[in-house]
Amino acid sequence: MLDWDHVFARRAERMRASEIRELLKLLDQPDIISFAGGIPDPALFPTDAFREAYSECLGGGDAASGLQYSVSEGYRPLRYWLQRELGQFGISCDIDNIFITSGSQQALDYLGKLFLSAGDTALVTSPTYLGALQAFNAYEPNYDQLGVANRTPESYHTAALAHGGAVKFAYLSPDFANPTGETVRLEERHRLLTLADELEIPVIEDAAYQHLRYDGEAVPPILALDIARSGSIEETRTIYCGSFSKTLAPGLRVGYVVAAKPVIRKLVLIKQAADLHSSSINQMAIAHVAERHFEAQVAKIRQAYRARRDAMLAALERHMPTGTDWTRPEGGMFVWVTLPEVIDATALLSRSVKTEKVAFVPGQAFFADRSSANTLRLSFSCASEPMIEDGIQRLGRLIASELS
Amino acid sequence: MLDWDHVFARRAERMRASEIRELLKLLDQPDIISFAGGIPDPALFPTDAFREAYSECLGGGDAASGLQYSVSEGYRPLRYWLQRELGQFGISCDIDNIFITSGSQQALDYLGKLFLSAGDTALVTSPTYLGALQAFNAYEPNYDQLGVANRTPESYHTAALAHGGAVKFAYLSPDFANPTGETVRLEERHRLLTLADELEIPVIEDAAYQHLRYDGEAVPPILALDIARSGSIEETRTIYCGSFSKTLAPGLRVGYVVAAKPVIRKLVLIKQAADLHSSSINQMAIAHVAERHFEAQVAKIRQAYRARRDAMLAALERHMPTGTDWTRPEGGMFVWVTLPEVIDATALLSRSVKTEKVAFVPGQAFFADRSSANTLRLSFSCASEPMIEDGIQRLGRLIASELS
Repeated sequence: MLDWDHVFARRAERMRASEIRELLKLLDQPDIISFAGGIPDPALFPTDAFREAYSECLGGGDAASGLQYSVSEGYRPLRYWLQRELGQFGISCDIDNIFITSGSQQALDYLGKLFLSAGDTALVTSPTYLGALQAFNAYEPNYDQLGVANRTPESYHTAALAHGGAVKFAYLSPDFANPTGETVRLEERHRLLTLADELEIPVIEDAAYQHLRYDGEAVPPILALDIARSGSIEETRTIYCGSFSKTLAPGLRVGYVVAAKPVIRKLVLIKQAADLHSSSINQMAIAHVAERHFEAQVAKIRQAYRARRDAMLAALERHMPTGTDWTRPEGGMFVWVTLPEVIDATALLSRSVKTEKVAFVPGQAFFADRSSANTLRLSFSCASEPMIEDGIQRLGRLIASELS
Repeated sequence: MLDWDHVFARRAERMRASEIRELLKLLDQPDIISFAGGIPDPALFPTDAFREAYSECLGGGDAASGLQYSVSEGYRPLRYWLQRELGQFGISCDIDNIFITSGSQQALDYLGKLFLSAGDTALVTSPTYLGALQAFNAYEPNYDQLGVANRTPESYHTAALAHGGAVKFAYLSPDFANPTGETVRLEERHRLLTLADELEIPVIEDAAYQHLRYDGEAVPPILALDIARSGSIEETRTIYCGSFSKTLAPGLRVGYVVAAKPVIRKLVLIKQAADLHSSSINQMAIAHVAERHFEAQVAKIRQAYRARRDAMLAALERHMPTGTDWTRPEGGMFVWVTLPEVIDATALLSRSVKTEKVAFVPGQAFFADRSSANTLRLSFSCASEPMIEDGIQRLGRLIASELS
């Protein structure tokens, strides 16, 4: 038998099965109340609208183009729809600034490929989206921490050089981030752009949850602020990654990147070489549904998720023991809990699943340095309000018993 | 404005727009007879079957799972169907040996990612599939030539070491290859497996055209021969890449990899990090159509493409001047033409488009070393028989006039 490890590339050492993901697979049982997932509630999918979309796209004169190869840039009517939609958020751009990906996870992979040579540094928040670390890891970067007060641009340059590379980008999810649910305030967004200016690096803005705001006032996307500061999208450094996975449906794998044309042109070449293009028929179906149902669909899911968030925050207030703290997100799917330091959330999960039948994700996985063992992520997107009350009550009881 | 070239990764230098692809975009005009494409004829797509498939998948109890996130390994019923289908070609395997990709192009990207560190060597035929070179290029390999008589394993090792890496795999498309249309004979397949054994490397078998045989006897896939030699797929070194793009439809982006589990497990991790999974609904639709229509569909396209190949070979016989040679493919979509050495196919293309309104792809692009300027690729998949006769007559006339 071939010694596979011997022929794998060096980067393969960083590809490991996530223990958490493996554990969570085992939890897919009906008697478990799961706050672990973080996926959209399938009961809210616009299923009829999609059935109609595929039927019309495959029934009309354009049927063959839905089944044929298509251009790497993406389906033009979908890019026109996005151009109009993005304009409402202050992102004025041309369709040549818009590139369709197979979900925003693919955008992260391609951006890692475009910017990171082995040993380069990516700046990420702490905690950050686990999937971003996994996507970037394939390109063997180091990570340094974004959002630390008092860090000078020089200190970032020096640290990157010491690891044998350069600082290549800052990555963050500014709205209702996975995992914390927190939103980056306007003045912090401006500070980040100034830092990126000083560092001469791009900013990757992961906007996957942007449409899921339940209250409070919308903060403009970093790309919109950058366009306002720079005068034109061609002068910006922000690379905006959007997705239809949280608004319409993830199973079609349709996302998009919006950026200055030199970036888009390279991403198109990467896609040509990596998977040619995203599914033609799915891009047509997404365009069909977005044109007819986007606003109503977003209103519908916001209402449902808002009620679940409210239920979770109220239940946490009622059931969490003193010394436990959590975020109060204005949108998204997640609440981030910080436990007293004596509690290890991974150990807590084992007990919670066994005795309380409640699942969540321990927070450690979301830190590039695997710190903060006393944190955990709760998702309210797929649980009913009574389940949320019940599950949080059980979890609060377990945490209280750990502390006593 | 940010100096983008300064922040791009080193590998970005190898990402260049293909001149040929840019040129061919301009040729998409109704008065051009194009033998350039190499894509399936959309008139042959099973459009009604797909319309029915989407309607049923989105109308039944499984609708939500078509729209939801799904596992990175791929849709189980599709993998079961493939297991049965592959068994007919001597590939006995388990569904855990089968991994679904977004087209076989994605398999090539992931295999480059899995095996190639910068400076490693990939063995490829000369010429080879251009898309494979593009996919591998992102991982900064060197190339060495597969299929040269008298090359010893030591000579490959030594050459790879001189380029700062190791030989990591051999890549080839053994059936009706793009671009030559040629098929690797049984004894050559065995010789290749022996060489790979001696080099202790895997063999990547690109089987994209395997189902498109029009005559002659089928040669077993390299993976089937490897299983027969090794006793079990777990003992093999062959990584088989298949696709539904040439049989059912490319626009859904569904392909697959079949290999020993250590390879599949790593590919699953790569996919988790790179795009999570291939479109759930498209995998369901492909399974639905494959289960009901695969054999009839393959019979239908074979019949249509066989007639076009026959027309092209007959026209070449009638119209090509002495000194011009071409392959006689038993399947696929391509005929490979070798012109007298005085003719440069890129220059010929400019004249051909201007004066004869006939397009093809100059052969140089398919060589890792850009050699063989006197070759060109003709595709017969999208042209009618009268167009083939007319186009080849014009091309033959032009070549004859170049020689006189």
